[in-house]
Amino acid sequence: MSNGVIEGDLSGKKVILGGEATEELYHQGSFGRPVEGGLELSLVEAAYLLDRGRIKVSLDGADLDFRSFFEAATSIETGFEFRYVVYKDLRERGYYVQPGVTDFRVYPRGGRPGKTPAEFYVQVISERHPVSLKELVEPMKVSRQMRKRLMLAVVDEESDITFYEARERELRGDMKVEARGGTATLLEDRVMLWDPEASEDLHEGGFYGKPGGGRLQLSLVESAYLLERQVLDIVDRSGAHLSPEEFARRAKEIEEDFEMKRQVYRDLRDRNLVVKTGFKFGSHFRVYKRVEGSKKVPHSEYLVHAVPDDHVFHLPVVSRAVRLAHSVRKVMIFARQEEGEVRYLEISRLKP
Amino acid sequence: MSNGVIEGDLSGKKVILGGEATEELYHQGSFGRPVEGGLELSLVEAAYLLDRGRIKVSLDGADLDFRSFFEAATSIETGFEFRYVVYKDLRERGYYVQPGVTDFRVYPRGGRPGKTPAEFYVQVISERHPVSLKELVEPMKVSRQMRKRLMLAVVDEESDITFYEARERELRGDMKVEARGGTATLLEDRVMLWDPEASEDLHEGGFYGKPGGGRLQLSLVESAYLLERQVLDIVDRSGAHLSPEEFARRAKEIEEDFEMKRQVYRDLRDRNLVVKTGFKFGSHFRVYKRVEGSKKVPHSEYLVHAVPDDHVFHLPVVSRAVRLAHSVRKVMIFARQEEGEVRYLEISRLKP
Repeated sequence: MSNGVIEGDLSGKKVILGGEATEELYHQGSFGRPVEGGLELSLVEAAYLLDRGRIKVSLDGADLDFRSFFEAATSIETGFEFRYVVYKDLRERGYYVQPGVTDFRVYPRGGRPGKTPAEFYVQVISERHPVSLKELVEPMKVSRQMRKRLMLAVVDEESDITFYEARERELRGDMKVEARGGTATLLEDRVMLWDPEASEDLHEGGFYGKPGGGRLQLSLVESAYLLERQVLDIVDRSGAHLSPEEFARRAKEIEEDFEMKRQVYRDLRDRNLVVKTGFKFGSHFRVYKRVEGSKKVPHSEYLVHAVPDDHVFHLPVVSRAVRLAHSVRKVMIFARQEEGEVRYLEISRLKP
Repeated sequence: MSNGVIEGDLSGKKVILGGEATEELYHQGSFGRPVEGGLELSLVEAAYLLDRGRIKVSLDGADLDFRSFFEAATSIETGFEFRYVVYKDLRERGYYVQPGVTDFRVYPRGGRPGKTPAEFYVQVISERHPVSLKELVEPMKVSRQMRKRLMLAVVDEESDITFYEARERELRGDMKVEARGGTATLLEDRVMLWDPEASEDLHEGGFYGKPGGGRLQLSLVESAYLLERQVLDIVDRSGAHLSPEEFARRAKEIEEDFEMKRQVYRDLRDRNLVVKTGFKFGSHFRVYKRVEGSKKVPHSEYLVHAVPDDHVFHLPVVSRAVRLAHSVRKVMIFARQEEGEVRYLEISRLKP
């Protein structure tokens, strides 16, 4: 067994070392993959070991110093800089890291390849590159199939990394509402329920609307839901009764996102959750598991933001949303639809 | 002087009361404006007084109850619902409120019309209506000319109000940097300075870049600034020297917002501020007044986000940004350009 510097050759997207590397680097350090007569390193593994003086790399017989190797690697492999930053960071935290279905797979603390299963699949993302909903959902599905957790490693322009976990959540509440309704009016932009008793019933029993002067102001999604569930009757200012379809049509004119918000609102209420606007937190909804009357309103658990099928996440925006949710002790959830069902995607900070 | 119910008529966008109202409502309560032989109320003033049973309002000889008056008012005046919610809230907090150049002017606590100047101009905004940069800058200018502060009252879909103040800020720092440079390489997406001494100098002396392994990774805006200021020499991977113009051209290909970010970055550095990425806070930059070496990095004071001329603010996004900045004890600043100069617009929460 040698503890000297091991020599290898840069060849395409790999560095190939001789068989003497297998014991020291592979068995002891979980670097690389054994191949016939030697050990094969990825470019990030090679850069990491080169920087630590553990290997030498030559190309066409000439030694490459770190700078030359690094400059070459960024030309050979798109995204090399980001992957290197993340690989180095995780290695220096003491994790074993191997190439994976996504950029890397990472072993749990104390675990290593060949002994324990990997815990995480890691997706490396530059803060500059927007990520479509699909690009996020696919690795989530793959990870779940493989019983791994999905780690997103977002590299900012100064090479700092923020780690997130993305996973699907089942949301359930504990709030069954039975309330008397009444007749409400669709005004310019919101709905007013005029009857004092019905107003109190809905507000105290289901935490609907905003009370004031014996009346209840209801948002468009609240009104649509209560109309669909036949709790409310809604008229316009001319006194004409509005069907759920007609109300939805008018609401869409007032609020661009209405249809998407309504579907998520309905799904959350049907899951016995209490849903209020999340405006103060920059999200569509804040969500409570249960609210026992307006006098002791508890802490809301989730911020839920509905996103369309073709949504593109901008990482700075995700960063702000998740950090804000965390600062108010809530969980950030993005609600999407798949095959007519609402699905909930939690994104939370990870501190590996 | 009567303390009975005063009668008036709805007439267009006004309610006209008889002369007996002037003493009780105008002199005692600062409601309305005296007109020939009577007192004129705006629709929000009238709704407020009607709801409290202080006045009666008739139309064509028939009394209007609150519901009828309110439904009529929302038809007569676009945005009535929002203005009513804000007017009522401010009145109930004990402020005197009058119509103004913007939606309202508000008197300082203890002050009132005719005795003290107004303190605030109030702009009422629905969270649903995006606000262009211009629509925000205009009332800021008017307010400043009139020596008023500008209050934004944002009404959410449940009629809760969030109050903000918008004002122009002068930013100044205390950090004069003199550093030796060196030659750095533009890689795929960022710049690497290879020389250990120059790296330490720039990082310790100006808090530039991210150090590691004796090297310094610089962001694109940092590199552009140091290249312009002739501290750095930058080559590409082929070894070709890049002029500031050529570097900017390549940076724009990597980062869409590069030009806008660079101008703000340069202005902030030239103001002796220390500027680092604000990615973790969802903004372009976090800004320090001074950093004395990397071992005792202080708290950064500002989050600065650059916006283009034609920027449109979405209120939920502003809400999230300001709330997040506040939660980490920073001030949220939007940087815009006017006639070639960078101007700083602070938006902060107000608790009236």
